Amino acid sequence: MVTVADQLARVLAAVVALPPHEVALADAYDRRLAADVRTLVPIPAWENSAMDGYAVRYDDVAHAGPDAPVTLRIVADLPAGSSLDPALAPGECARIMTGAVLPTDADAVVQLEHTDRTDPMAGVADTVTVLRTVERGQHLRGAGEDLGVDALVAAAGTTATGTVLSALSSAGHGSVRVHPAPRVTVISTGSELVAPGAPLRRGEIPDSNSLLLAGLVRRAGGEVLAVLRVPDEPAALEAAIARAGGSDVVVLTGGVSAGAYDPVKQVFAGSDDVRFASVAMQPGKPQAFGRLPSGPLLFGLPGNPVSAWVSFHVFVLPALLALQGAPVSELTVTPSRATAGADWGTPPGRTQYLPARMTLVNGSLVATPVASRGSKSHLVGSLAAANGYAIVPAEVDRVHAGEVVDAVVIGTDHPLT
Amino acid sequence: MVTVADQLARVLAAVVALPPHEVALADAYDRRLAADVRTLVPIPAWENSAMDGYAVRYDDVAHAGPDAPVTLRIVADLPAGSSLDPALAPGECARIMTGAVLPTDADAVVQLEHTDRTDPMAGVADTVTVLRTVERGQHLRGAGEDLGVDALVAAAGTTATGTVLSALSSAGHGSVRVHPAPRVTVISTGSELVAPGAPLRRGEIPDSNSLLLAGLVRRAGGEVLAVLRVPDEPAALEAAIARAGGSDVVVLTGGVSAGAYDPVKQVFAGSDDVRFASVAMQPGKPQAFGRLPSGPLLFGLPGNPVSAWVSFHVFVLPALLALQGAPVSELTVTPSRATAGADWGTPPGRTQYLPARMTLVNGSLVATPVASRGSKSHLVGSLAAANGYAIVPAEVDRVHAGEVVDAVVIGTDHPLT
Repeated sequence: MVTVADQLARVLAAVVALPPHEVALADAYDRRLAADVRTLVPIPAWENSAMDGYAVRYDDVAHAGPDAPVTLRIVADLPAGSSLDPALAPGECARIMTGAVLPTDADAVVQLEHTDRTDPMAGVADTVTVLRTVERGQHLRGAGEDLGVDALVAAAGTTATGTVLSALSSAGHGSVRVHPAPRVTVISTGSELVAPGAPLRRGEIPDSNSLLLAGLVRRAGGEVLAVLRVPDEPAALEAAIARAGGSDVVVLTGGVSAGAYDPVKQVFAGSDDVRFASVAMQPGKPQAFGRLPSGPLLFGLPGNPVSAWVSFHVFVLPALLALQGAPVSELTVTPSRATAGADWGTPPGRTQYLPARMTLVNGSLVATPVASRGSKSHLVGSLAAANGYAIVPAEVDRVHAGEVVDAVVIGTDHPLT
Repeated sequence: MVTVADQLARVLAAVVALPPHEVALADAYDRRLAADVRTLVPIPAWENSAMDGYAVRYDDVAHAGPDAPVTLRIVADLPAGSSLDPALAPGECARIMTGAVLPTDADAVVQLEHTDRTDPMAGVADTVTVLRTVERGQHLRGAGEDLGVDALVAAAGTTATGTVLSALSSAGHGSVRVHPAPRVTVISTGSELVAPGAPLRRGEIPDSNSLLLAGLVRRAGGEVLAVLRVPDEPAALEAAIARAGGSDVVVLTGGVSAGAYDPVKQVFAGSDDVRFASVAMQPGKPQAFGRLPSGPLLFGLPGNPVSAWVSFHVFVLPALLALQGAPVSELTVTPSRATAGADWGTPPGRTQYLPARMTLVNGSLVATPVASRGSKSHLVGSLAAANGYAIVPAEVDRVHAGEVVDAVVIGTDHPLT
């Protein structure tokens, strides 16, 4: 038996990030940045007005007030986007809209409401009377007030969400180097499996793992190239694997145990490429992992759906993240402390990974098993409610409601840590 | 001024879920179920073996033990998927693999390890000697043990993740009725905007909102049909809106204030279709919402990126979820209690929506502003770190670190509640 940590270390040692390529920002959505990205232009790019109003010389209005109105001559009109930089002599101002660049000669903005011309839709007049003073620099947004030039916008490994892409654009970038999506082939093995919805003869069951794994791969940022289903025949499995040569990853379910008909075991018995391990976890004990001579990483997960789900999150997900260039800190999960929401039993001698419903109760994390009858690993119908899992050490026999356990929240864009 | 709740109610009153259509399970990923889905077949479908071993008549082995071995005749070999149902006379058994259907005449499984034939790869012999007794029903998974026939698998409005699709397949379904992805056109308005990466003349800034909104729409399950950028000219905006006629939703940013050049305001001034509101929130006060005569819902969000981000989460996201058939409980967010991770100031007289980094510290939720200098709404470079927002009532002047605030976690597949 190997520990979960050792098996994961073996997996991660075999993975390097896929070679990055440069893409337009609009095509980078959900990909990971290949390098730190810094500002090419400051944010904001220009010193600009935070208000609709009048750009003034502060000295002109320093003493303005309801009882001391100051009338200024309007020499320009500056909508957002204007390239004008009108000279302002003493006693002169420019009408300015929110976001428009401040004239070089101005050093404050008087908002519309503090003048005698409060209607923003009116045409530009010759003069405006200022009815209140301002402070020097008031209602201005300084160039670089958010980020200066050559400041870090987003670190290597960051996922290019809408907010990240927006920041990259504001920083002057039109394209960015990102790691591509890992291309994944999913193969379900089992002579008992038929296509979803097909009528069942005695002994047959619908293939559910291919949908499960394809969905998990997509959620993890992978591109599902193909989904295949093969009977428990080594030749059929070898043919399916041959078809997966263009993939970065092949995820197999089933056939990794020691049964008489386990095809993964048979195809790779004695192989140096793919090795079998008994991992000290429950579920998920039998695992196969390696790299095919044709290039793809290969994961052989147990066929039981809950075992496959747990194995995916513990071993495959970190590999998919690493292929996408995720930072090392995301590859090894640090569990959170959570309160057990129910009692449950645990298996002897192996670390338990229990699919759980993670909720926040009064701001504190609670982990409740999704399968009401405990951790029976075939309760596929219950798995849909899981958004995390509890991790219970081998030496614990039973978890009681209210006790503190380690737990991992999944399915978040920004993992809660 | 209208309250956030009233404005959201106006939005939701105008939205109905898009008409559902039937798709193969493999094509239903990330869509919402249009109706409750129930089991057509039980899960598991058959009473089957939980172990590699021998299917026996319990009475034959009731007294077996190391000192009382019982030798049985092997009359069949049952791999997973076998349709055989061999008759077992007293003294007879069948070799059986994990997942294979139990013969009608058997009522227990003896695992390999408790026999004299522990090598699963060996051929099938004529006899096997059982060295330990079992309980009646041991190592069996009963048909329907997880879910019986006509049991609820997933409720209307559930998102079809991999685990949900896997459960639907196990329940006998090959296809499912789902609501389609809302088709969204994103339009940035502003004469100051240029394409990301384009050189900047004085007064110009890169368009960042179109990337921001397109990313948020995709994260929310929408399909981005087109991303357009128009100057502050009513004719240009009208042309862009005309192009968006095939969309379910048009999201505009900018041009909703009272400035002299705000084109959204000009195009829809006095319109019965699209109405403007001053909402008692900060940022996000100016909002436009309505339905175009050509069909699409129209949202006019403030152009400031942080205002657009907040407005999206408070008004557009619930509408996109409703179009996809999300349950009512997901449309109105119930904030969690969180501990403030820092001090921050709040605006007078309006509810504050502050982009925040939400973290779990010792299992408890902490909300920390992402903009180190408070809630300045132009700090687009900082927004990328936000995975939630704090909501501070109008009457609060300042939040102090350690105080309890209301906060919403975003970006989770299963919202933490």
